[in-house]
Amino acid sequence: MTERVLYDLAAADADRRFSPFCWRAKLALAHKQLPFDTIPWRFAEKDTLAFSQHGKVPILRDGERVVEDSWQIAEYLEATYPQAPSLFGGGAGLALTRFFNAYTDTVLAPQMASFVMIDIEGLLDEASARDFRKTREARFGKSLEAFCSDREARLPTLRATLNPVRHVLGQQAFLGGEAPLYADYCVFSVLQWARCVSPMRLLAADDAVAQWYLRVAAAHEAVFEGVPVFELIEG
Amino acid sequence: MTERVLYDLAAADADRRFSPFCWRAKLALAHKQLPFDTIPWRFAEKDTLAFSQHGKVPILRDGERVVEDSWQIAEYLEATYPQAPSLFGGGAGLALTRFFNAYTDTVLAPQMASFVMIDIEGLLDEASARDFRKTREARFGKSLEAFCSDREARLPTLRATLNPVRHVLGQQAFLGGEAPLYADYCVFSVLQWARCVSPMRLLAADDAVAQWYLRVAAAHEAVFEGVPVFELIEG
Repeated sequence: MTERVLYDLAAADADRRFSPFCWRAKLALAHKQLPFDTIPWRFAEKDTLAFSQHGKVPILRDGERVVEDSWQIAEYLEATYPQAPSLFGGGAGLALTRFFNAYTDTVLAPQMASFVMIDIEGLLDEASARDFRKTREARFGKSLEAFCSDREARLPTLRATLNPVRHVLGQQAFLGGEAPLYADYCVFSVLQWARCVSPMRLLAADDAVAQWYLRVAAAHEAVFEGVPVFELIEG
Repeated sequence: MTERVLYDLAAADADRRFSPFCWRAKLALAHKQLPFDTIPWRFAEKDTLAFSQHGKVPILRDGERVVEDSWQIAEYLEATYPQAPSLFGGGAGLALTRFFNAYTDTVLAPQMASFVMIDIEGLLDEASARDFRKTREARFGKSLEAFCSDREARLPTLRATLNPVRHVLGQQAFLGGEAPLYADYCVFSVLQWARCVSPMRLLAADDAVAQWYLRVAAAHEAVFEGVPVFELIEG
């Protein structure tokens, strides 16, 4: 049997796996019905990833093959295991899914970051926490506190950012149609990130996005086993 | 031969066809390689659409069949002419394309409206112009002038709204991959709307979105013939 291992970002508590990019990779593996183990990896453990090109998780080791970057992992799995359920629903589906990935990375994740970044530091091991604050504050050009200020008041903006998702979910059960596809996992991964690190209840209980979040999670229960989470949904 | 006619929103100049929803329908028909005629329709001509359920364009008359709403028209064409080039690239593609339609209608078009609404009134016939100002000002809760104020200063925001589109176009020629699909026509339709009504040069010449806009237009030259437009792109 192939040894399949995913390097997966962890908090001080090794069970708390919170990276949105790693969630995309884990859900892609689960969708493809491929068994895999994870290796918890922490921000400060740079040396552990010395074998890799970019030094960032997720990294998939599939037998002899090493694949970095969540999108590359999804494309690799689709090409390597074509007989397993498709992540994209065909060639056009793959091309169209890039937009969901881009919307997630350029719109949704930056917006979400301004809500949850302040909660992450306290969950990390000491060395990673120092590294985290320093690199993020340099990236944002302000303190984590300033970056996440007024988040309660900004909640309506975050919810409005999900409007196009909400609109689609008024017409079908998943972004991919009757069952989830990788497009669903892209958007889901950012909510899952928040749920793993922040006590904020970001979604209203009667929000179609909240109901969809639960449907996606229910479709792949095994990947969530043992992961400590906060309450994402009000009520 | 089937008589195929599209009711198409027109300005005082009957050649100036500016509705983003009508552009989606015309591009869908062109993509399907289906010949069609258009009937120019103006906002004030309510009686002309008395036969329809919603009284809004686009409306497609395909022989005996009447189809309203741009998304319904696209789905109708895909189902009715399966042998013609696909608008969605399969069942998953259709499901995924709903998000492009939703992103266009809930994010991109409202943003664009705050740039071009002020330019439309002057292009309309007198009766339509009165109706236009009254209904839009009621909808926005402010004057058209207030709704579109400071648009030059807001141009960076509009361009940033296109970031996820831009990101995808750094990786492939069209949102649909190597050739345009209905997903492309959704986003394109809002830029085409602007180009038909506003002298503002909304896109920088070196913007990947500008180059893509020109590629989509070049793919269906015939539908643009004789339509007066402004310059959308700087330079």
